[in-house]
Amino acid sequence: MVYRVGLLGLGTVGTGVVQILQRPGHPLLRAVDIGAVGVRSLDKPREVQIPPERLTTDLERIVSDPEIDIVIELLGGLEPARSLILKAIDHGKQVITANKAVIARYGAEIFQAAAQAKVSVLLEAAVAGGIPILQPLQQSLRANHLQAVWGIINGTTNFILSQMTQEGISFEEALAIAQARGYAEADPSADVEGWDAADKIAILASLAFGLPVEREHIPCEGIRDISATDIRYAREWGFTFKLLAIAQSSPRAASSAGPSRLDIRVHPTLLPLTHPLASINGVDNAVLVQGDPLGQVVLSGPGAGRGPTASAVVGDLLTLIAHLQTGAQVPNPLLGFPPLLPFSAGGAEPPQLQVGIPLAELEAEFYVRVLAQDQPGVIGAIGTCFGNHRVSLESITQKECHREQAEIVILTHTVREADCQRAIAEIRQLPQVAGIPGLFRVLR
Amino acid sequence: MVYRVGLLGLGTVGTGVVQILQRPGHPLLRAVDIGAVGVRSLDKPREVQIPPERLTTDLERIVSDPEIDIVIELLGGLEPARSLILKAIDHGKQVITANKAVIARYGAEIFQAAAQAKVSVLLEAAVAGGIPILQPLQQSLRANHLQAVWGIINGTTNFILSQMTQEGISFEEALAIAQARGYAEADPSADVEGWDAADKIAILASLAFGLPVEREHIPCEGIRDISATDIRYAREWGFTFKLLAIAQSSPRAASSAGPSRLDIRVHPTLLPLTHPLASINGVDNAVLVQGDPLGQVVLSGPGAGRGPTASAVVGDLLTLIAHLQTGAQVPNPLLGFPPLLPFSAGGAEPPQLQVGIPLAELEAEFYVRVLAQDQPGVIGAIGTCFGNHRVSLESITQKECHREQAEIVILTHTVREADCQRAIAEIRQLPQVAGIPGLFRVLR
Ligand SMILES: NC(=O)c1ccc[n+]([C@@H]2O[C@H](COP(=O)([O-])OP(=O)(O)OC[C@H]3O[C@@H](n4cnc5c(N)ncnc54)[C@H](OP(=O)(O)O)[C@@H]3O)[C@@H](O)[C@H]2O)c1
Ligand SMILES: NC(=O)c1ccc[n+]([C@@H]2O[C@H](COP(=O)([O-])OP(=O)(O)OC[C@H]3O[C@@H](n4cnc5c(N)ncnc54)[C@H](OP(=O)(O)O)[C@@H]3O)[C@@H](O)[C@H]2O)c1
Repeated sequence: MVYRVGLLGLGTVGTGVVQILQRPGHPLLRAVDIGAVGVRSLDKPREVQIPPERLTTDLERIVSDPEIDIVIELLGGLEPARSLILKAIDHGKQVITANKAVIARYGAEIFQAAAQAKVSVLLEAAVAGGIPILQPLQQSLRANHLQAVWGIINGTTNFILSQMTQEGISFEEALAIAQARGYAEADPSADVEGWDAADKIAILASLAFGLPVEREHIPCEGIRDISATDIRYAREWGFTFKLLAIAQSSPRAASSAGPSRLDIRVHPTLLPLTHPLASINGVDNAVLVQGDPLGQVVLSGPGAGRGPTASAVVGDLLTLIAHLQTGAQVPNPLLGFPPLLPFSAGGAEPPQLQVGIPLAELEAEFYVRVLAQDQPGVIGAIGTCFGNHRVSLESITQKECHREQAEIVILTHTVREADCQRAIAEIRQLPQVAGIPGLFRVLR
Repeated sequence: MVYRVGLLGLGTVGTGVVQILQRPGHPLLRAVDIGAVGVRSLDKPREVQIPPERLTTDLERIVSDPEIDIVIELLGGLEPARSLILKAIDHGKQVITANKAVIARYGAEIFQAAAQAKVSVLLEAAVAGGIPILQPLQQSLRANHLQAVWGIINGTTNFILSQMTQEGISFEEALAIAQARGYAEADPSADVEGWDAADKIAILASLAFGLPVEREHIPCEGIRDISATDIRYAREWGFTFKLLAIAQSSPRAASSAGPSRLDIRVHPTLLPLTHPLASINGVDNAVLVQGDPLGQVVLSGPGAGRGPTASAVVGDLLTLIAHLQTGAQVPNPLLGFPPLLPFSAGGAEPPQLQVGIPLAELEAEFYVRVLAQDQPGVIGAIGTCFGNHRVSLESITQKECHREQAEIVILTHTVREADCQRAIAEIRQLPQVAGIPGLFRVLR
């Protein structure tokens, strides 16, 4: 049996996929024939050889071609990717994609359509590149009551933070290096504002907690405001900065009724240097999964790049072909994305989770850096503001003075964010205070 | 549809499996009924409630009971585990096991039988406890040409080495702590001699490289000879001691013909503190997988214990049920262990790998600690011996003197092991030399 693949896109990842398929690492992949490749330009020089009659700009034809069994979408962007995926499903094709943006926004629509058409949509490459994370979350780890998924899932920002940490340079300098090396785009917003990480944690959270997660319910803060100074002070206290994407079930206080809540967010975080995610540097990604009775596992490796991403795409292709070869009549319920389907279908109650908690309601320790006039009494005034809002402090230190200014760095105990924000607002009003350039959460 | 499970063994892991199944984390697991549980003693108090009529000492009956669909073997040991697994297969049952000892020795026999009976034998829990590693190696990572699998896959020895490193204590003291905490058995040989790690790397290597690995082809050295002194000196140079299980394809020298070779071995290793496996401490396990075009991924987490191991067993059960629900007519070729089957069946040539390389033929850097009389010229004499056998040195240091004795610690460049061994033999003959208590490989 030969499986005919329609490949949409022959860019970074698409080229990597063709390279693997032209020299497959597993015998089952020899059953694959690349029937058609859809691109924007037929004239562009390509790094791989594709018979000219198979290269086309007519992507609509690929996804409706009765000869094609499996469509691999590697275009990127929202449209025409979304429409082509839906059309491929309508025509009964299995689908593989690396497109986190489309899945995070249109996942519900896509997986509903896939369930109706009885096809699978696989997307291992969409999150954390070459690291196996979606399949383990659905299979090996799935017997657990999953409690938390924490990820460093954006390689660009991890590279920038690693550079800032190692070289003591500013965000702008580190961004320029990332751009020069091709790790950041000319407009780096999607990465540095945390939007890409938010797309990915939406996907991880839906899988881990079995419920749809709306992208807009994810509070998201980027890394632009982190300064070399904050990184240095954090380090002195044994912390390192990481852009964390977090999804965890958060039991309500015993007093209040209602379902548990899914705490999901993306923001820069100070992690103790001994934390298992603290040593993930450069463009690497890592995902920590905590479950009961499992405990914690950490999966780490290259989160992007041609080779790792293509490896995940072709891993999905292999998984799909193996499944099709068994004579199965329906999709395997642990492949693709059944959690987004109506829960009644599987006979299960929907999980009792309210998605998204406003940051103000969460608890954390905080790192705060205040610029103030170097006057006696300023530490006392700042401490009093925190006390007024029941924010208890672990440490308050006057760091260094220049031009009559003092830098005062504070580490709080675990407090409600709303209380900390109120204290901060009061501190901003103090006559001695010039500004609060650093305010970050500390997690352990 | 209800799937009836026959559970063989209700000890540490078996009890954990029942606990998960009595409070399942995934709706598909509600289709599981624990039809029978086989134990040695009916009178032992149990931590979980099993209806008395389902508890039996007649394990033969469980594996031949037509009502049972899936047999989970959690007895441990070679017999009767092997015979019961084979009998279950003969009776057409799907099998799940956590028994690395049986699989490492009788895997070929068992998987051959499973292929004939068209059933799957799953064993995620047999290697690295709760860490998903066998499924990723077979699915998400399988599109790669796998080059190396390095593992810290014995929690007992990793705990002992971590204790020795953190507390500066001896092997015997650390072993006693491990025994007191239940991490080491009264007879700790299987762990500390590296035999358990060898069982597991045999399984990992067969999966990763797609060929049967005979347990006897794996050179294996334990951790008994590591002293607190060696750990301290290694640390000063930026290394930490780990018991590594290694499987990697080793291309022959360009000059020589013949297939590539599979370098597979277990021994204590000095790793740079910056190595991704260097920070795996305590009873945790980790597996590093390197492939082309993937690069390196590292999967880490709890390598043993009731919860993590049961999590992996029930993960396999879920995978199996999901597969059975699809109406598949044959086992999924990416579940269980097809690589041990005759390769012609899949239309693939057998991989061109010769399994096992004598350590003497391998290359490494070496750490050597020599006890010698504190006399002028001794460093020169030792250096000359190394030079005689073309062992080039990175560093040779006289550490401290007590009772007229000097400790001389050497780090070589990368050399053939046979050359290093010849130099060591010559050094042993030097009149000034009292002994060579430390000789270990350094890998990066
Ligand atoms: N690159 C990574 O490291 C990475 C990692 C993880 C996930 N991903 C995801 O993988 C997907 C592909 O990324 P990539 O880096 O390979 O993108 P890319 O290099 O920009 O390639 C995109 C390809 O799609 C084609 N294409 C785009 N829009 C098209 C249209 N409207 N009609 C026809 N063809 C069109 C382009 O054709 P032309 O060649 O003719 O221009 C090109 O071949 C994205 O969803 C991305 O998020 C990428
Ligand atoms: N423990 C771990 O952390 C761990 C981790 C990874 C893999 N594993 C593997 O999991 C398997 C089970 O380990 P375990 O720690 O759960 O072992 P265990 O605590 O010693 O339990 C063994 C169970 O099997 C029963 N049993 C043993 N021999 C029997 C026989 N001949 N007839 C009937 N019943 C018999 C015992 O019955 P009684 O209760 O009546 O004595 C007991 O219930 C082993 O293969 C082990 O290598 C264990």
